[in-house]
Parts: sequence; structure tokens; C-alpha cells
Amino acid sequence: MVKSCFLVLASFLYPILIFFEYFCGMVKVSIIGSGNVARHLINAFEKSETVEIVQVYVRNPETVLLEIGFDKITNDITTLDEADIYIIAVSDNAIAGVSADLPFINRFVVHTSGSVPLDALSDKNHKGVFYPLQTFTKNKEVDFKEIPLCIEAQFGADYQLLERVARVISDKVFAINTAQRRALHVAAVFVNNFTNHMYSIGNDICKENQVPFEILQPLIKETAEKIKVLSPEEAQTGPARRNDSSTIAAHLAFLSDYNQKNIYSLLTQSIQNNVKEL
Amino acid sequence: MVKSCFLVLASFLYPILIFFEYFCGMVKVSIIGSGNVARHLINAFEKSETVEIVQVYVRNPETVLLEIGFDKITNDITTLDEADIYIIAVSDNAIAGVSADLPFINRFVVHTSGSVPLDALSDKNHKGVFYPLQTFTKNKEVDFKEIPLCIEAQFGADYQLLERVARVISDKVFAINTAQRRALHVAAVFVNNFTNHMYSIGNDICKENQVPFEILQPLIKETAEKIKVLSPEEAQTGPARRNDSSTIAAHLAFLSDYNQKNIYSLLTQSIQNNVKEL
Repeated sequence: MVKSCFLVLASFLYPILIFFEYFCGMVKVSIIGSGNVARHLINAFEKSETVEIVQVYVRNPETVLLEIGFDKITNDITTLDEADIYIIAVSDNAIAGVSADLPFINRFVVHTSGSVPLDALSDKNHKGVFYPLQTFTKNKEVDFKEIPLCIEAQFGADYQLLERVARVISDKVFAINTAQRRALHVAAVFVNNFTNHMYSIGNDICKENQVPFEILQPLIKETAEKIKVLSPEEAQTGPARRNDSSTIAAHLAFLSDYNQKNIYSLLTQSIQNNVKEL
Repeated sequence: MVKSCFLVLASFLYPILIFFEYFCGMVKVSIIGSGNVARHLINAFEKSETVEIVQVYVRNPETVLLEIGFDKITNDITTLDEADIYIIAVSDNAIAGVSADLPFINRFVVHTSGSVPLDALSDKNHKGVFYPLQTFTKNKEVDFKEIPLCIEAQFGADYQLLERVARVISDKVFAINTAQRRALHVAAVFVNNFTNHMYSIGNDICKENQVPFEILQPLIKETAEKIKVLSPEEAQTGPARRNDSSTIAAHLAFLSDYNQKNIYSLLTQSIQNNVKEL
């Protein structure tokens, strides 16, 4: 009788305990890696009262992480303690290997890459992705609250836990699957890497002509802000957009660098094709 | 004796009067045009206590300018009253014609274009350029204080007057000659028009893959902010920068649009060439 009472009670209590564990308890997280993303995540979690960093695994024993206490750093992957989530924040091509090297099974392991599929993680653990879509720079602090976190998980319960952890550090959490994330990553190359290259060419042209690049800074800022209120198509201006062939010809004549000329022609053509489609 | 005293006095007073006229008095400005730049300039001058807008010339008699009183608008170029500066803010290819049509000589006439040389203005008046380097959008107010004004004048005294007017509305005034302005204008096409096109392609990729473009907004903002503390070369990241050929190949395989593929290849190549040169 006592035993069956206990069993009934336990069967009630267990889901409640699991519920508390998932939705109210402290979440134990281990970070694997010591690069920019790892450091920024450690910084963000250290400020929270919901996520506890159990350990940080670094490959090189001499790595110093100012973000966390020395006692929590390990360089021996076999000594990883139990945690609710293991976040692999290493370079893309090292993710599969590191996830296969983990000395445990049936735990929840996520990576932080925009371009690596969920399935790249080893099958021996539950898989997930925790991709902060931002450009991280060493020594430049970022406000994680503003950084979109794109998350994905193999199982529903894992997703809920991951979402909880994500909401602790960011106000912008999105469910993004592997196919969507690949698209986002390519789009990010255009709006970030290629945009920065446009700045770089602008800077080169200024330097060659003894013009201070800072004159262009307000324009760069306004270009980025404009698309919060207008779509990029609506925001498009310039000689290509208005088919101003004499200005385009003058600019091409001005550019002496073959590479810059090529880029100018191709992007002008591309803008003009877009206009035709409108 | 009285007459010579008067002459001596006048010869002292005249330069002082000129000085006051130029450096302390109200500056009378007439605006020729009714486009975005004209409207933003009218708005900015109307708030100042140093610049008085004498008249605004509009081609179309039905043009309504909410920025200024009806009595100051004229559509008859022959009725232009006397002013210290005439600012021609019309489309690039109309500047030469409008400046030739002005019904007076030996006054100070400037245009507001980044790509038109000083010499495009008619020889019958003093020439100058008053180029606000910003992207203006109808109905979107801008803070003129932050907009760089690139100014040029044929004569020193005109330059000083133009500089004074520029400083009334902006904190960022630069002496930029025609050759430098041409370079700036080309650089602006890269950092503004082409950057916006990168946003546009990013938006297209998001739409095709059911991903909200807003996820990319913080990245776009950070990309623009980063180059205030780092040079664009230092700020460059991404697969091209780190020569990550497998990600580059995956991105090219992902892109189905021929034009997007072409742009991806050319810009990747250009970033890689830059890296080699470092």
C-alpha cells in the first residue's frame, strides 16, 4: 500500500520535477572552444542568473580566458563534467571531429555555426544549433540582447531548453532550420562581408585621392538605417538606379583599377536588371 | 576738407562694412529647384537665424513647397531678386542650362552636385559648389548637423561666405575641390548604392527561403558601426577573408541565381586579392 502510494506520488511528481528542471531551474552549460564566439557567450552567460557555466574546454593548455575562473577551464576532453547543454564554439571544420570526440552519449550537444548542418554533429548525442547571427570582434563588447539567436534542435524538449537559454541572453530568438540557416549565412555574407568590402574600396578610392574617409561615415550610417523603414529595393538610389548613363560612364573612366571597374560594372548592371523587374 | 575727411572715413569704414556683411550679417540665399536636396536645404536654412531664404525658384508653377511661404516661390527665372548666394539644386544634367539662364552677372552661384565640376556653371557669375554628402529620402527628416558639406569656390571671399553658410547648418564642413569631389562621389556609389544593393540581394535570398530579413538588421548595423573603430581592411571577416574554400564552394552551390553567383565570385576574388596584398 505504502509502496503503491509512493509510486502514484512519484508518477505525479516526476513530470513536475522535469518541468521545474526545464523551465525554472539553473541550466548547466559547458562551452567547448576559446574563440570569439566562445568568449562572447561566456561573457553573456556569466552575467545571467539562470545559466551556470560548468566548464570551458580549450585545446591549448596555455589558453588564458579572462572571462572565467581558472578552475573551470579544462584541456582534457575526457574530464568534461555533466551539463544540460554542451555548446561547441569552434571553427566550422572542427565541429564534426570535436562532437565525435565527446566522451559521453545521449546528452544535448549544439554547435554555433551558420554554415554547418545540424547533422554534422555526432549521432551519439542529441543535436542542436545555437547560432548567434553577428560579427564578433575581439575586444569589442557587443550587447547580446540585440543579437538574433537562430536555434534548432532534433527533439522538442531540447528545443524548449535551448530556447530558454537563448532568451536569457537575447531578446531576439528565432526557430531556424538547417536549410534556412544556410540561406541566412549566404545572405549574411552579402550584407556583412561584401558590404564591408564596398567600404574597403571606398576607403581605397579616398586614400588615392587625398580625401578623408570620415566624410563618408554619415552616409554609411544612413544607408544602414534607411532599410529599417524602407525595403532595400525602395531605398536604392544612384546612377544605376536612375539609368544615368553619362555619370556611369564618367565613373568608369575615373576608376583606373581593373578590379574596381569590374565590380562597378557588374553591380551597376545588377541594379539595372532589378529596376527592370520592378 | 570736409570731403577729404569723409573719404578717409569711408575708406576705413568700407572694409569694416564688408567684413560685417560677410562674417556677421544675415546671408541672403535663393534656392533654385524643388527636389529632395532643395527641400532639405530649405528646411535647414529656415531654422537658422543667419541665413534668410529670399526666394525659391521652381520650374512647375503648380509645385507646392510646404517648407516655405507661398510668397517666396517663383516660377519665372527672370524675376529672381538679389541674393548673396544662389544655390542650384537641380538634377545634374540641368545644372549648366539653369546657370546659363540666370538673368544676372557677377553674382555668386553654386550647385549641389557631387559629380558635376565647378566649371559646368556659367562663366558669367562667380562659381561654387555646396555638396551635401548624404542620401536624402523624401519625408524622412535628416539631422543636417551630421551631414558633411563639401564646399568649393572660385574666389577666396566667396569661399569664406560659403563656409559661413555651411557652418550654420552643419558641424562637418570640408574644402573639397572638383577632382576630390569626383573621387568622393565614386566612393559614395560603392559605400551607399552598392552596399544597398548587397542588402537587396540579402533580402531576396531571405524571401526565397522564408527567413525574415529583420534577423540581418543587427548585423547590418554592426557592420556599419565597426568601421568607426577599425579600418575596413581590419574589419573584414568571412569565408573569402579566411580563404575558406569549402564554405565558398557550398555558398556558390547554394546560389541558383546566375547574377548573384557572379557577384559572389567576383567579390570573393576581390577580397582574396586584397588579403594577398596585405
